[in-house]
Amino acid sequence: MFDVTRYAVAADSIISAGRFLYGRGWSPATSSNYSARIDENHIAITVSGRHKGELGSGDVMVVDLTGQPVQSQCKSSAETRLHTVLYQIFPDVGAILHTHSVKATVLSRLLPAGKPLSLEGYELQKAFSGVQTHESTLDVPVFENTQDIDALAEQTKCWFEQHPEQPGYLIRGHGLYTWGKTMADCLRHVEAFEFLFECELETMRVRP
Amino acid sequence: MFDVTRYAVAADSIISAGRFLYGRGWSPATSSNYSARIDENHIAITVSGRHKGELGSGDVMVVDLTGQPVQSQCKSSAETRLHTVLYQIFPDVGAILHTHSVKATVLSRLLPAGKPLSLEGYELQKAFSGVQTHESTLDVPVFENTQDIDALAEQTKCWFEQHPEQPGYLIRGHGLYTWGKTMADCLRHVEAFEFLFECELETMRVRP
Amino acid sequence: MFDVTRYAVAADSIISAGRFLYGRGWSPATSSNYSARIDENHIAITVSGRHKGELGSGDVMVVDLTGQPVQSQCKSSAETRLHTVLYQIFPDVGAILHTHSVKATVLSRLLPAGKPLSLEGYELQKAFSGVQTHESTLDVPVFENTQDIDALAEQTKCWFEQHPEQPGYLIRGHGLYTWGKTMADCLRHVEAFEFLFECELETMRVRP
Amino acid sequence: MFDVTRYAVAADSIISAGRFLYGRGWSPATSSNYSARIDENHIAITVSGRHKGELGSGDVMVVDLTGQPVQSQCKSSAETRLHTVLYQIFPDVGAILHTHSVKATVLSRLLPAGKPLSLEGYELQKAFSGVQTHESTLDVPVFENTQDIDALAEQTKCWFEQHPEQPGYLIRGHGLYTWGKTMADCLRHVEAFEFLFECELETMRVRP
Repeated sequence: MFDVTRYAVAADSIISAGRFLYGRGWSPATSSNYSARIDENHIAITVSGRHKGELGSGDVMVVDLTGQPVQSQCKSSAETRLHTVLYQIFPDVGAILHTHSVKATVLSRLLPAGKPLSLEGYELQKAFSGVQTHESTLDVPVFENTQDIDALAEQTKCWFEQHPEQPGYLIRGHGLYTWGKTMADCLRHVEAFEFLFECELETMRVRP
Repeated sequence: MFDVTRYAVAADSIISAGRFLYGRGWSPATSSNYSARIDENHIAITVSGRHKGELGSGDVMVVDLTGQPVQSQCKSSAETRLHTVLYQIFPDVGAILHTHSVKATVLSRLLPAGKPLSLEGYELQKAFSGVQTHESTLDVPVFENTQDIDALAEQTKCWFEQHPEQPGYLIRGHGLYTWGKTMADCLRHVEAFEFLFECELETMRVRP
Repeated sequence: MFDVTRYAVAADSIISAGRFLYGRGWSPATSSNYSARIDENHIAITVSGRHKGELGSGDVMVVDLTGQPVQSQCKSSAETRLHTVLYQIFPDVGAILHTHSVKATVLSRLLPAGKPLSLEGYELQKAFSGVQTHESTLDVPVFENTQDIDALAEQTKCWFEQHPEQPGYLIRGHGLYTWGKTMADCLRHVEAFEFLFECELETMRVRP
Repeated sequence: MFDVTRYAVAADSIISAGRFLYGRGWSPATSSNYSARIDENHIAITVSGRHKGELGSGDVMVVDLTGQPVQSQCKSSAETRLHTVLYQIFPDVGAILHTHSVKATVLSRLLPAGKPLSLEGYELQKAFSGVQTHESTLDVPVFENTQDIDALAEQTKCWFEQHPEQPGYLIRGHGLYTWGKTMADCLRHVEAFEFLFECELETMRVRP
């Protein structure tokens, strides 16, 4: 059983995030999915296939950390398991956002297979919790896209158990996953990642 | 004779779509035209030459599926026949949007003549009704531009009778046509196409 | 003497145009100037140096067709003469907009000296009054930039007396001038030009 | 002691500037910092780490020209000293804005070390106070990024004592600093710089 008021607050934060992210063009055409933690066993998450700029109270449901719906007949996002594994391994994560921008899509397709995106020398790296200086390297792993979400969930779980300091990942041709203690932290991470992806692509245009 | 309330609902959906599409820069300078089905013999369609971001109740008229105005002195879009042939061959299509973005214009001019645009490996291909995986190919035919709309209408009719699974087409240097069961489906298709066109152009900038 | 109500209407159309053009990023940093005809001897025109997105009733003044202020202590735009010569040679022009976009600036600097920008095969060429088909060529002359406005005014006057069918011109590194019978026509021309400039630049990025 | 009403006016101008600059994408992810002069010894400045599009009355504090907080328990921006040195050497400067755009970040990383960005032949150079013609050169120095703000403050102080006519500077991979007599002047300078950075990058894309 989960606290209903905590669900309502979590759902509100997801609805607001959707309006912002859709408005920026990062969640087009009913793509993307978002979640926020209710308690150690439950999260609020978007119902599958909804318009992310027009989320309403009926568009956010509850699942437990195995991904099963709780007190709901709705179908949660097909990628629910990618959320729940992160809540399992990071007890202090309060929100996870998966977005779907042009920049993340194109950049992830241009990067060579098997290598992370390495970001260096950007002042904005300091927007990530725990980063104190631009004189560091921020690695963003790029996983191959698949419709086998359970396999990808397992893969990301193994990776982030070993690399807990990395604040997000890309799926090739698909988009970004990032997280934070609060929804505000998580939105700051999305903004920072999108900024850095755009910087990298702008640079590749001039220096291919 | 058509149901007037159904006309009003169709016209409303067109007016709202116009505000959205103009706001995104996809229907500039009075370009574009939009329609929505009223019944099996009638559609609502934009009057020729109107500002698509400022459509009002006087800017949407009725035509039958031969393109003739019904209960109206107005002149419908010059491209009305491109709409009506699609309603003829696809009985379950409820809305058609023709947009006119920079990306669609430029991309369609850069593609070699006689070949479709082939989209592969994008998660967002799943935004099109019926597509289940990114591991598929989405072909978008590119027709040569012409002021002979009847000829182009016949050409598209023949094409889509044989390729009913393709969700839209480009006219070179001109723009996009796409459709859907509902206006919401159709708008999702426009967003998905524009996203994919931008991805393709971004990629061509880095890897010409 | 001019009709005061006609001045008020002209000023209103300029103020609205400014909000739109600034919002699109085409009149940044107090650049640009706009005018609308009051009668055969008078025009309303923006006062020099004002923020174009925040124009108010004190920011539009009256000048005669020699460029002299009428019933005003304000200083009109430094480029007033570029407006008045066009009103002199085109009696049916009702509005002139000079904008200052990144695309117009960059494109005009990249074009070879002494040659016009030639636009061909774009459906959107039909947005210009009098153009019926994309199978035509739209020439946009590019004048060298100068702070000697009288000289440039004379140059443009001579040019457009001989090329009255051309709907606008560029000044290198500076921006666009275009006009129309009404402010709505003129705004449509700005939108169409900006669309076409962006198409040309996008194409040059992929095919330098 | 400072005049409280003057503080309130300065804080208001900072809050408004933040909404504008964040809205344009120039201050993402809690980056950037802004200040406005209260009197010859005091400035209002943003509190460290706040969301620049959502600044409220609790997000602007007072520091003296050595950078010490006055009547406040808050921590001012880590880059406070970069502001105070400019207020020291330029008694008529009333506002300073530090922004963090993609264009400034990418351009500053692409420029060769030890050379300024030189802008020439742009009409928009006239947006900077004191510039009368596009036939001039606007030099923008590029300092190397560092987390040693005191050292960078000293470096910029020496530079601008000798180059008081230059209206701003870049920090590599980090962003823009610019200033003006009033907040309106300063915002005009930001807009003009961002316009010119985008022009330079657009040009480099076509002519790498």
